[in-house]
Amino acid sequence: MGDEVKVFGFWGSPFSRRVELALLLKGVPYEYVEEDIFVVENKSPLLLQYNPVHKKVPVLLHNGKPIAESLVILEYIEETWKANPILPEDPYDKAMARFWAKFLDDKCLPAIRKAAFSPENEREEAAEEARACLKTLESALNGKRVMQEVTGEELLSVEKLPELFKWTEEFVSCSVVKQSLPPKDKVLGVVKARVAQTNAPK
Amino acid sequence: MGDEVKVFGFWGSPFSRRVELALLLKGVPYEYVEEDIFVVENKSPLLLQYNPVHKKVPVLLHNGKPIAESLVILEYIEETWKANPILPEDPYDKAMARFWAKFLDDKCLPAIRKAAFSPENEREEAAEEARACLKTLESALNGKRVMQEVTGEELLSVEKLPELFKWTEEFVSCSVVKQSLPPKDKVLGVVKARVAQTNAPK
Repeated sequence: MGDEVKVFGFWGSPFSRRVELALLLKGVPYEYVEEDIFVVENKSPLLLQYNPVHKKVPVLLHNGKPIAESLVILEYIEETWKANPILPEDPYDKAMARFWAKFLDDKCLPAIRKAAFSPENEREEAAEEARACLKTLESALNGKRVMQEVTGEELLSVEKLPELFKWTEEFVSCSVVKQSLPPKDKVLGVVKARVAQTNAPK
Repeated sequence: MGDEVKVFGFWGSPFSRRVELALLLKGVPYEYVEEDIFVVENKSPLLLQYNPVHKKVPVLLHNGKPIAESLVILEYIEETWKANPILPEDPYDKAMARFWAKFLDDKCLPAIRKAAFSPENEREEAAEEARACLKTLESALNGKRVMQEVTGEELLSVEKLPELFKWTEEFVSCSVVKQSLPPKDKVLGVVKARVAQTNAPK
């Protein structure tokens, strides 16, 4: 087909990692372009051109056409490359997968981020919110274990959430997933720095 | 097929209206169940059972199986009833439609709601945000004209946003859309009451 596929991403972003993971699962070769998302001025002119609305990674570029928003990109990948389906075939099961993906992005990830990056005195309350989300979640999250290591707030444990724990254990031991995970110590470094900043005297 | 289709909705919710609109467009007969969403205790046990995560309308019940989240429901309707496609056929066009639907829900609607329901002294700033969203939007919004009538903040005008204005004019003059729009004076009453409440002395 001579497809030209590029991903504009950031090494530590679960959103760009999920796009890469989908392409890996489908066996679609792609070129990866790393973006410096921490400093606005460092974002490449191409990223701003391809995602002028949100100015964020990930962006998938397919034969010159850009798509933004990771869940939108996943749907596009699923429809464009049929091998190794990501979503279940049955429309109802598919709806459930979409519902949980949306729940993860809209509710869980913001709650977990808040639990990790709240000032110390607000952290327990935020962690409680995050725990409630995780209790509801029947799907999996990526990157949270690093956060609990840093903040000391245990969000995910085999005792409290056995099914979710098992799911993530299986998820991260899959060889394709392993390939797309960012190095743990690098993630840990960034998260620790951010937590320290949150708690620094103003 | 003997399909049993029910929609749990609220007359003034654009989210449940879009589900009804999709069913109308597809020609799928359904039973409508009105929920009182203003008072938590008035929500029906069925709604809580069918959408335990968000406890919100709309819920689509298809042959006893519940689906929540309006955009997830629309995808399900599109896949289940093939007549009169809602989404474009081309995968890239489809991705664009999904991108703008997500933008509408995640950015525009919250900004417009904020512009309508901010206390008077914060309203201009909130309206500015909403205007920026609408400028970006290439799709359409429903219900905003009522809000600008109440608050006096003009968000959508033929001079400032000619394409969007034209789109919404066409949208609301479509016969199926007309059928699914809530009565304007009823919407106006609810919005006015809420604006008054926002500005009432604490």
